[in-house]
Amino acid sequence: MAHDILILTEAELRKAVPLDIAAIDVVERAFAALAEGGVVMPPVMSMELAAAHGEVDVKTAYIPGFDGFAIKVSPGFFDNPRLGLPSLNGLMILFSAQTGLVEALFLDNGYLTDVRTAAAGAVAARHLAPETVEVAGVIGTGMQARLQIAAAHLVRPFGRVLVWGRDAEKAAACARDIAGMTGVRAEYCPDPQALVAQSQLVVTTTPAREPVLRADWLHPGLHVTAMGSDQPGKNEVEAAALARADLYVADNAAQCASLGELRAAERAGLWTGGLPPELGEVITGKCPGRTAPGQITICDLTGTGAQDTAIATHAAALARAAGSGVKITA
Amino acid sequence: MAHDILILTEAELRKAVPLDIAAIDVVERAFAALAEGGVVMPPVMSMELAAAHGEVDVKTAYIPGFDGFAIKVSPGFFDNPRLGLPSLNGLMILFSAQTGLVEALFLDNGYLTDVRTAAAGAVAARHLAPETVEVAGVIGTGMQARLQIAAAHLVRPFGRVLVWGRDAEKAAACARDIAGMTGVRAEYCPDPQALVAQSQLVVTTTPAREPVLRADWLHPGLHVTAMGSDQPGKNEVEAAALARADLYVADNAAQCASLGELRAAERAGLWTGGLPPELGEVITGKCPGRTAPGQITICDLTGTGAQDTAIATHAAALARAAGSGVKITA
Repeated sequence: MAHDILILTEAELRKAVPLDIAAIDVVERAFAALAEGGVVMPPVMSMELAAAHGEVDVKTAYIPGFDGFAIKVSPGFFDNPRLGLPSLNGLMILFSAQTGLVEALFLDNGYLTDVRTAAAGAVAARHLAPETVEVAGVIGTGMQARLQIAAAHLVRPFGRVLVWGRDAEKAAACARDIAGMTGVRAEYCPDPQALVAQSQLVVTTTPAREPVLRADWLHPGLHVTAMGSDQPGKNEVEAAALARADLYVADNAAQCASLGELRAAERAGLWTGGLPPELGEVITGKCPGRTAPGQITICDLTGTGAQDTAIATHAAALARAAGSGVKITA
Repeated sequence: MAHDILILTEAELRKAVPLDIAAIDVVERAFAALAEGGVVMPPVMSMELAAAHGEVDVKTAYIPGFDGFAIKVSPGFFDNPRLGLPSLNGLMILFSAQTGLVEALFLDNGYLTDVRTAAAGAVAARHLAPETVEVAGVIGTGMQARLQIAAAHLVRPFGRVLVWGRDAEKAAACARDIAGMTGVRAEYCPDPQALVAQSQLVVTTTPAREPVLRADWLHPGLHVTAMGSDQPGKNEVEAAALARADLYVADNAAQCASLGELRAAERAGLWTGGLPPELGEVITGKCPGRTAPGQITICDLTGTGAQDTAIATHAAALARAAGSGVKITA
């Protein structure tokens, strides 16, 4: 039974699926669905290819109310840079949630993951950051440092950005890129403690295995989004910070306990509160979010298949409307 | 870093990848690799979409010596026939095992699974059936009934085929198709016991949950391949048959203990021999196969990701050689 499958390349997706309010809204809807129940999200499938210093992860989720579900395949081959190739690649496949038929193939090399990850940070900022953010800080200098700040700026139009990273030159380059993307004054800040002290919103975007943000740097009126940890052993925020905050929120509580900041805090005996509230519960009002401007909030993002399903569904709708990509009858 | 991705549709794959000795050989190589070690094969990822009476499975395997690895996504949506659509669909993705880059997309709607599943049956027949098979029997009347017999005929050129199914008309239609595919006389046999009695090779290809082949039907010089069970609860061969045979072989011992015929036999206390030998160990000579024409042998096939990697690698080589499919630069 032949049917049409829409295929888009990374270049086409970069044109068709911008990091904008619409992307943030669709990812927010996925988080809300996680809180409303009925989402099916199996554990990540993971395979190591030790001979090539590679690994591949597969994520998926079904969200009630979304027409399709995505399966995302993310290979990471860490010797690739020696061959002049990026370490991270991959694609997303969108299936009909009614018939299981393949609807679209997104040969995105990880671009849609970049967008949905940054969009999740903006959802956290929208629901947890103080209403007024004058200065935003970012710890880390990679692609997500740029995209997290660009996304957060869409929901909290701050006027100044501070960037810290271990490599001052990379941090300065990141600040220049952020200024170009947002039109906001952005600069390298040589001291992460000073960065946090001046900021009302801080995003940590590192692969750190030792905390880069100390508990005693927390101050009234601060929101922190920690999005770097997605594996056991990664840890960006000092364990004591989670309990010291007025509110600590997870994208997925069980997953944060195994892959996120919660893991280190529980192992250190510094989090004994059991499973924390989830971002979706804050969005839907099941759990209170920030209730006063002076509160300290922390959001822990480890990444969920629900975000992939959301962004893939969004990408298909945009591509169809724009007539982009090619169709193959299969 | 743009690179070419080869895309083939089901129609193109049906032309490019016939069920032939080459397909059987490449699947045999995958089974041998399973016995030689170094294969990485994570458990199947499975997600249920209860609202649509659907499910989706993801399989993968890395096989040393194969240039690529496949990820197969198999949706099954059992209300589809009401919509005029097949229940089973899906695709395979072939990745480079050196770089993780996507090399090929096979929009096969399950065709390559049909081929690799039938090829596995032929591998079992090649290594376990008596040298001389005059009559082959098949229990079941679906696509695999046809393909299993067509594949087995390539390695054991029998002169007659008997088909049994609960629905006589479907069984007669299956026999006609088999005759057309193989050029061999094929007919409906109204009694499965009589079918087994006359055959030297029997393949069971049903989704049965109660045995369709009885232990006391086994006779000297018989080989049985049971390929229908791939889920807990399915069971084609009576539990006592496994121990009664001279040799019972699994495609993957651990998987057969959870999804195959071994499960029912162990639960009934009628198999206490622990994990059985695997087909790959027979192929490589680590375990003896049939050692005398009068022996009774049974092979239990539940399906492995290694077969998917093998057939996808084979399909890519054939498609490249034939110049079939389209290339997308992504």
